[in-house]
Amino acid sequence: MEINGVKIDDTYAEAFPIFISRVIVTAVTRNWALKAATEATGFATSCIGCAAEAGIDHYMPPDQTPDGRPGYAILICNPKKDKLKEQLIERIGECILTAPTTATFNGITDAPEKLPVKLHFFGDGYEHQVKVGERSCWAIPIMEGEFITEEEFGVVKGVAGGNFFIMGENQMAALAGAEVAAEAIESVKGTILSFPGGIVASGSKVGSKKYAKFMKASTNEAYCPTLREKVPDSKVPAGVNALYEIVIDGVDSKSIEAAMRAGIKAACKVPGVKMISAGNYGGKLGPHQFRLHSLF
Amino acid sequence: MEINGVKIDDTYAEAFPIFISRVIVTAVTRNWALKAATEATGFATSCIGCAAEAGIDHYMPPDQTPDGRPGYAILICNPKKDKLKEQLIERIGECILTAPTTATFNGITDAPEKLPVKLHFFGDGYEHQVKVGERSCWAIPIMEGEFITEEEFGVVKGVAGGNFFIMGENQMAALAGAEVAAEAIESVKGTILSFPGGIVASGSKVGSKKYAKFMKASTNEAYCPTLREKVPDSKVPAGVNALYEIVIDGVDSKSIEAAMRAGIKAACKVPGVKMISAGNYGGKLGPHQFRLHSLF
Amino acid sequence: MEINGVKIDDTYAEAFPIFISRVIVTAVTRNWALKAATEATGFATSCIGCAAEAGIDHYMPPDQTPDGRPGYAILICNPKKDKLKEQLIERIGECILTAPTTATFNGITDAPEKLPVKLHFFGDGYEHQVKVGERSCWAIPIMEGEFITEEEFGVVKGVAGGNFFIMGENQMAALAGAEVAAEAIESVKGTILSFPGGIVASGSKVGSKKYAKFMKASTNEAYCPTLREKVPDSKVPAGVNALYEIVIDGVDSKSIEAAMRAGIKAACKVPGVKMISAGNYGGKLGPHQFRLHSLF
Amino acid sequence: MEINGVKIDDTYAEAFPIFISRVIVTAVTRNWALKAATEATGFATSCIGCAAEAGIDHYMPPDQTPDGRPGYAILICNPKKDKLKEQLIERIGECILTAPTTATFNGITDAPEKLPVKLHFFGDGYEHQVKVGERSCWAIPIMEGEFITEEEFGVVKGVAGGNFFIMGENQMAALAGAEVAAEAIESVKGTILSFPGGIVASGSKVGSKKYAKFMKASTNEAYCPTLREKVPDSKVPAGVNALYEIVIDGVDSKSIEAAMRAGIKAACKVPGVKMISAGNYGGKLGPHQFRLHSLF
Repeated sequence: MEINGVKIDDTYAEAFPIFISRVIVTAVTRNWALKAATEATGFATSCIGCAAEAGIDHYMPPDQTPDGRPGYAILICNPKKDKLKEQLIERIGECILTAPTTATFNGITDAPEKLPVKLHFFGDGYEHQVKVGERSCWAIPIMEGEFITEEEFGVVKGVAGGNFFIMGENQMAALAGAEVAAEAIESVKGTILSFPGGIVASGSKVGSKKYAKFMKASTNEAYCPTLREKVPDSKVPAGVNALYEIVIDGVDSKSIEAAMRAGIKAACKVPGVKMISAGNYGGKLGPHQFRLHSLF
Repeated sequence: MEINGVKIDDTYAEAFPIFISRVIVTAVTRNWALKAATEATGFATSCIGCAAEAGIDHYMPPDQTPDGRPGYAILICNPKKDKLKEQLIERIGECILTAPTTATFNGITDAPEKLPVKLHFFGDGYEHQVKVGERSCWAIPIMEGEFITEEEFGVVKGVAGGNFFIMGENQMAALAGAEVAAEAIESVKGTILSFPGGIVASGSKVGSKKYAKFMKASTNEAYCPTLREKVPDSKVPAGVNALYEIVIDGVDSKSIEAAMRAGIKAACKVPGVKMISAGNYGGKLGPHQFRLHSLF
Repeated sequence: MEINGVKIDDTYAEAFPIFISRVIVTAVTRNWALKAATEATGFATSCIGCAAEAGIDHYMPPDQTPDGRPGYAILICNPKKDKLKEQLIERIGECILTAPTTATFNGITDAPEKLPVKLHFFGDGYEHQVKVGERSCWAIPIMEGEFITEEEFGVVKGVAGGNFFIMGENQMAALAGAEVAAEAIESVKGTILSFPGGIVASGSKVGSKKYAKFMKASTNEAYCPTLREKVPDSKVPAGVNALYEIVIDGVDSKSIEAAMRAGIKAACKVPGVKMISAGNYGGKLGPHQFRLHSLF
Repeated sequence: MEINGVKIDDTYAEAFPIFISRVIVTAVTRNWALKAATEATGFATSCIGCAAEAGIDHYMPPDQTPDGRPGYAILICNPKKDKLKEQLIERIGECILTAPTTATFNGITDAPEKLPVKLHFFGDGYEHQVKVGERSCWAIPIMEGEFITEEEFGVVKGVAGGNFFIMGENQMAALAGAEVAAEAIESVKGTILSFPGGIVASGSKVGSKKYAKFMKASTNEAYCPTLREKVPDSKVPAGVNALYEIVIDGVDSKSIEAAMRAGIKAACKVPGVKMISAGNYGGKLGPHQFRLHSLF
């Protein structure tokens, strides 16, 4: 299979379940909402070494938010529900409550379950309840005025680790392909790319051969172009000299599929992109499989 | 004392020691260096609830970095040295090693002590040593090519919690004052503002009166404009209806002073800013005191 | 009438006809499309002193553009059709053809009339015709490869000068109100705000009293807060100390109305915004009238 | 000659004189100064088709500007002095006077000659003179308050058309090389890159062979990779499949040299960049020659 002359590998991406909450962050201007959303979703690339996976889902113009101000919907994800709750408290408390003019609202109102995030205790008894539309919120007095927040956030069982590889004839071609793929996925609601700029430069394998005692993940040598002649099982095709991985978390399988479709199509427009593949572990990692050829 | 018609309160900022390392993050373009630096310094506003305080110190044009590429110097801070080491490993490993085209170098070469950050194990035996100028580095094969990094980062005993308050006749005036103060401090090398956009909207007091059992920090009601008539000891002056706090971490006292001076002067240019003050705890919090009137 | 406690003046905005073309600018990544679109719509605030009024209409994700790459739709406007044609040639030729990886396409395919924009002559005989989907385009060999462009751009009779005033208790409140209004209007397709950041700080009156011989426009003293006590007919309400004007060009009346509605609603959320009004000239300027109270 | 393995062609860039003024644009925050500076320097890539060449020279932190607010120094350039004066009036009047919170000051105080830019007439008699430090300025009442400006701007005979070519093994490599070159030059004071993102994708030759009657410039077929086999005198080296030109205007020869040096060194760090060359017309275009090998 080819798209715009780029080979689509006959393989699949393997993914696994993760708990996800969506937080709507609003502020007086778009820029302030973005700054708070960025801080709150930082240091959150992979649960291997971070306390959460997080990212910006999408921008919400003023007429789409609960309080009529510009905002961003962010996703915060963790394989464990209690850890997710903890991360919601810490990330909202440290990075949004502290940010200028922000408010936070539950972004999945029809979720089957809700996590309590009791920030009103910060008000030390001076807080009071308010309604924002139909939503029950707390108003907490702070230096700038009042911080408004809901205290229950819907949680759903989503999908982590949707992915594909962008292989280029050289590094800059592969990178431009990955960049435009990440941009295309920004428009797919219900998904985030938790890595910097949405791109992974150093995809890993589980465990380590040489440093197995203390490394739970290490470089995936089969996909390292500089090791093509040095490892027996290299999966770097001839003519490919660099590759990047796009890793997607989403609220459901459908959104992962839409993101993979949009990202792959966009990447195939970049001159020098040679092939699209995907990462899987033979079905050992997780129950979700996204076959590339089935997306188109 | 007045600057440009704005009253400078006769008080001081109280600050305390913190361990700081500086990481130079370079990449193929400025934009990719910035994305990695932003992710690596996210979720790092205050050590009360985050595992580190971190932020971008300054941009480095290509001719100023070890490898001749554009970069950013970031500071990562923690009151405990072993926690700082852990955070260097996690933040570089999860947020920079994973980011496209990056490399990392020690940003305080003359520090009295260095922390080991052994990322080369990720290479699973395929890594090799290289020189970048005079620096001994590791080259780790990854999907995009090779990640280059030093493995020792200087650590210094710096200063956390340098601060000042910007008080405005209304919220937007105070916010613009805080914004331009934060921008001015960006040009002061050796300092970071770890909060979103460099600004704190919800300065806290230690502990809690009503929820003392489980809250280690709570709103500082004396500085809440909406509580002026409700608390006996309000410190919100007449005519002030909103305030923001700028909190500064820096490699030494001198850099904190330079940052406070630059930030306060800039804020006093904003129409509607009425007064500058600072936060202290009567000397109980820390050994550093920065008297506002002594800055000018 | 009040929205969120902000008074909506019982007046109308007066606007006039203008010819408008929409150019779709695509590029390899969103960022390069934005840079070209920004340059091509620069120095284009008002036809009083600029050769065109121009701005960015909206972002187009890869799946919405003719060539499947990210892009921006821009509007270029002029009261005279031949001047508009000239400006299309110059702005595309100097600012988009010269920009990295760009292509340009007609953004109003169902317009009753099309303007010829014959850029293929730049190819000096080496150009050749290509199809992009159903569109007939030219491919012009250049240093980076080939520039692809359509050569006919639809033109419609749109509306210029849709407007409203945001009045604040001080400058920073009025400015934040104007900023968020401009942001809200970004999401309204078919409209642009041609002034810097979408905001006018210095609304003018036609002609001049003191320098009538050589000034075709001058400050509108009735709306200058610093002149409230000095001019007999000041229209600056008590309690208002700064105001900004939002000026909108749009492809039709409906889009102007949608933009005014979105912008005013958003501005009324900003603390310190006191009143919304609009500018008219008693019906002498143009045939379009947008009554504020009729918008809601 | 080679830098980092990239061949530096043994040729020179040819440049010519141009009149240049520098305008310092300040505003309440850096962002507002940037928006005004961007609008004022738009549609100004080349005097072949634009009324000026213009761009942002450098950012000025608050402590470096005449009024203590953040600002940008911009350069506006024209081969004719009277045209430059006209452009200063139009670009400041339409794009900066209209922008929120801005002020403008002369950026070359020691220039041998000054151009009058009498914007105070906009005040219609309500304007008044003020001092900003030692500078004599006008304060013009406008809707947001007052616009402050100097009315004389220094003009110097600078250099236009300093240039170099970045040749890559494919388009994305050449583009990344050009991007980082442009970024590096941003740090060289006294220079601007007037094209979108600082890069020219479609370098031209003077006149046209096929359409000589009406085209004063056309594609430079000798440097078009897709025409390598079709034109007799192609200058596209084997292995090069795309190239970009960086075009620099500067206040003097020295600043052009510094910019070329910084840009070329940065570009040579990008993987896939194969060769650096430069454009000249055998000495017919202008008196300035910048030999690449002499820069290093």
